[in-house]
Amino acid sequence: MENSNTSIENRESGSPVSAIDTTIDLLRSHFGDRLTTAMALREQHGQGEDSHGCMPPDAVIFPHDNEEVALIAQICNQHQVPLIPYGTGTSIEGHLLALEGGVSIDLSQMNSVLKTNPEDMDCRVQAGVSREQLNDELRYQGLFFPVDPGANASLGGMAATCASGTNAVRYGTMRENIKGLTIVTADGRIINTGTRARKSSAGYNLTQLLVGSEGTLGIITEVQLRLHPIPEIIRAAVCSFSSLQDAVNTVIEAIQMGVPVARMELLNALQMKACINYSKLQGFEQLPTLFFEFHGSDAMVNEQIQTIQAISDSHDGSAFRWAENTEDRNALWKARHQAYFAGMSLQPGSKSIPTDVCVPISRLADSILGAERYARSLGLHCPIVGHVGDGNYHILIVFDDQDPDQKQKAKDLSRYVVEEALAMGGTCTGEHGIGSGKKDYLLKEHGEGVELMRMIKQAWDPRRILNPGKIFD
Amino acid sequence: MENSNTSIENRESGSPVSAIDTTIDLLRSHFGDRLTTAMALREQHGQGEDSHGCMPPDAVIFPHDNEEVALIAQICNQHQVPLIPYGTGTSIEGHLLALEGGVSIDLSQMNSVLKTNPEDMDCRVQAGVSREQLNDELRYQGLFFPVDPGANASLGGMAATCASGTNAVRYGTMRENIKGLTIVTADGRIINTGTRARKSSAGYNLTQLLVGSEGTLGIITEVQLRLHPIPEIIRAAVCSFSSLQDAVNTVIEAIQMGVPVARMELLNALQMKACINYSKLQGFEQLPTLFFEFHGSDAMVNEQIQTIQAISDSHDGSAFRWAENTEDRNALWKARHQAYFAGMSLQPGSKSIPTDVCVPISRLADSILGAERYARSLGLHCPIVGHVGDGNYHILIVFDDQDPDQKQKAKDLSRYVVEEALAMGGTCTGEHGIGSGKKDYLLKEHGEGVELMRMIKQAWDPRRILNPGKIFD
Repeated sequence: MENSNTSIENRESGSPVSAIDTTIDLLRSHFGDRLTTAMALREQHGQGEDSHGCMPPDAVIFPHDNEEVALIAQICNQHQVPLIPYGTGTSIEGHLLALEGGVSIDLSQMNSVLKTNPEDMDCRVQAGVSREQLNDELRYQGLFFPVDPGANASLGGMAATCASGTNAVRYGTMRENIKGLTIVTADGRIINTGTRARKSSAGYNLTQLLVGSEGTLGIITEVQLRLHPIPEIIRAAVCSFSSLQDAVNTVIEAIQMGVPVARMELLNALQMKACINYSKLQGFEQLPTLFFEFHGSDAMVNEQIQTIQAISDSHDGSAFRWAENTEDRNALWKARHQAYFAGMSLQPGSKSIPTDVCVPISRLADSILGAERYARSLGLHCPIVGHVGDGNYHILIVFDDQDPDQKQKAKDLSRYVVEEALAMGGTCTGEHGIGSGKKDYLLKEHGEGVELMRMIKQAWDPRRILNPGKIFD
Repeated sequence: MENSNTSIENRESGSPVSAIDTTIDLLRSHFGDRLTTAMALREQHGQGEDSHGCMPPDAVIFPHDNEEVALIAQICNQHQVPLIPYGTGTSIEGHLLALEGGVSIDLSQMNSVLKTNPEDMDCRVQAGVSREQLNDELRYQGLFFPVDPGANASLGGMAATCASGTNAVRYGTMRENIKGLTIVTADGRIINTGTRARKSSAGYNLTQLLVGSEGTLGIITEVQLRLHPIPEIIRAAVCSFSSLQDAVNTVIEAIQMGVPVARMELLNALQMKACINYSKLQGFEQLPTLFFEFHGSDAMVNEQIQTIQAISDSHDGSAFRWAENTEDRNALWKARHQAYFAGMSLQPGSKSIPTDVCVPISRLADSILGAERYARSLGLHCPIVGHVGDGNYHILIVFDDQDPDQKQKAKDLSRYVVEEALAMGGTCTGEHGIGSGKKDYLLKEHGEGVELMRMIKQAWDPRRILNPGKIFD
């Protein structure tokens, strides 16, 4: 399920040829060169950064504003042709597969920061603005947008998948950092949700319904974001442990004491080995390791560091290794962000299933250690990186796609990790979303609640054109 | 609109007599004495703590568990009889009016704290647990639930209206403190939403859709809550200002600097006068006043206090008056919580419209000062209390219900404040909800978005039995 073995050749478009051809002709009459059916672009838009394969859309279109997106939706809805929103293509649950053909709507040319309000620490951006672009534009105002999934994703895409990443312990996920949206509905209405106020009780919270809806309820075209002051002091450190249990217990105690650490990332021994080799890291050991980042005033940061060091010492953590300047810090986090590619390098030519469970903090050690044990029993590599302050971690299960036995074991491990997490009161996906890869798990997690979700989908998109086949069939 | 002049006498039940009679007979056969049609109880359940009058339901029923709530919903849905959830009756936007008759479902006997997980700082409660009851039960575990709307409301009711109150600057509103719900749907299904994980991207966020849905999408029967450690140090202080502008600018700077003040409440001069008289306060002046509360470690609290005092000094604030011990602090906050009754005492025998706008912080002074000016031009009292750290404040517009001119002016002031707030990018309601009182404003605020809300309502409650006539008609 996680790794559907689809390829370009064996995809059959779900749209009748006449409908898609008519739609493409109509769209071309409006958009000219901004609509393409070139195979290279179609292939690029029919896949994410995962092992779900590629299912290219029939065309790719590049709108410039809300009204153009609305026009595209109206035409596609009229002819019942699927519309698949595309940001930067960095999602990893098969969100971009054109399961039933249709048009990929690439929002990368809607990339303006529309308005920044430094005094209220918020801004409004078009969906195609990337997080690095936004932070470059904000830097001179002393502000930043904290959600950091690693990839330089678009903010529309991050909203659609409810992304989070390494900063969420302190600053929250996309959910906590979005105040409102502009969306285009299936029938081409442009709707604004939310306000610029810090809170509201005015009717149903459509913003929160849409965050994480993966393009199935509306096409996100603008995002109103909360911003944060660039911290006075940023300090980063690394600490290794002789056992995974000690590392995880350090995290659990830190969270239970409410220490507002900005980042707190775990890499297990195998992942450290992979990172040391892949990113040519100097002076690190192949041991379970925590990466920390502390933000705040001088006094606050020192208080946090003292507390964390005391907790870490009590679990036999190593001395803290400090990244003293911005360059060292960037190098450190770059290594962390390259963990995916480092993990893949453990078995060159392999495919992978990244797990994404999130469990209550108290169960984190049980969850991770159980996964490691099960992986060992199956003879699989089990590199782990985790935003462990949230209880969220990823195993990159690498496997040989040509080896049916190893492939089955990889699926078994993925399923085991999810089922154990659900039994602990956790979720099958902390930040990647359901996409095409985790639909079975959604049912396991939410049972009849999925029926209520479907009813919303049916009411808002009765012709089933918005990213069909994602989240549920 | 805000003060519908309804009375018991002129209500006509919207349910056909036979349907409601049949329903009551059926429910009585299951619930016996736990269903009542006694007028005193019906009247109590047909009103909140507001001036919307009373429209009693046809019966009041007291279920004990989820299955009983489901049975009630099945019976009412079958006979198309409205169901109005009732917590403690402290809402103030006409949420409890039985606009079309029906059955009030009183959840006060579902009042168990089901499970507390101190190590994950969360708990699960039945909807009828009140916040004071919960905090009494939590105290010995060193934990507390921070959302404090003043009234001792039920946690189910607080979830349904997305309540917040004085602690929201630091700890967030109900929205940020709810991890999951159990609801009963219109057709009597029991659905669990959310998980115990700190974050999730698994499908549509039904929890966030239901928070603030005011009983129109489902009956909330259980709430999974985030808890917080009782702060090591709590210090409270009061500071007065010669002008409202100075007081508000102090707040704006504090928020812009990101000082994590736990509570930051504004009372204007008239509200202070009313509170001094009503709550027999000693040693306070009839001046614009800020009430602060600081939570944290010794070092953190001292750092916050120093920063706030420096900001306040720069705006000619008075010396801080400290409430040094728990009793003094409780007396202080009791006076703040009694502000509503104090305001009402300004014009005994009057009715009132409480406004509830929330604006971006940068516009807070404009919003409040504009409201005061407009009130003066109309010759109306304008006592103001505000959770100003959120940009949310309340004018208690008191008026003589027998004086049509004053009544119209009160409505004009309320409308003016909302329209100005919306023009500033704010919301018509920060924490009270729409109820029956603010339906026009919801349309002004969300426009076509309201149509999307209606589609969800129609899909989930096609027979329109869940609190009909609230949020929208």
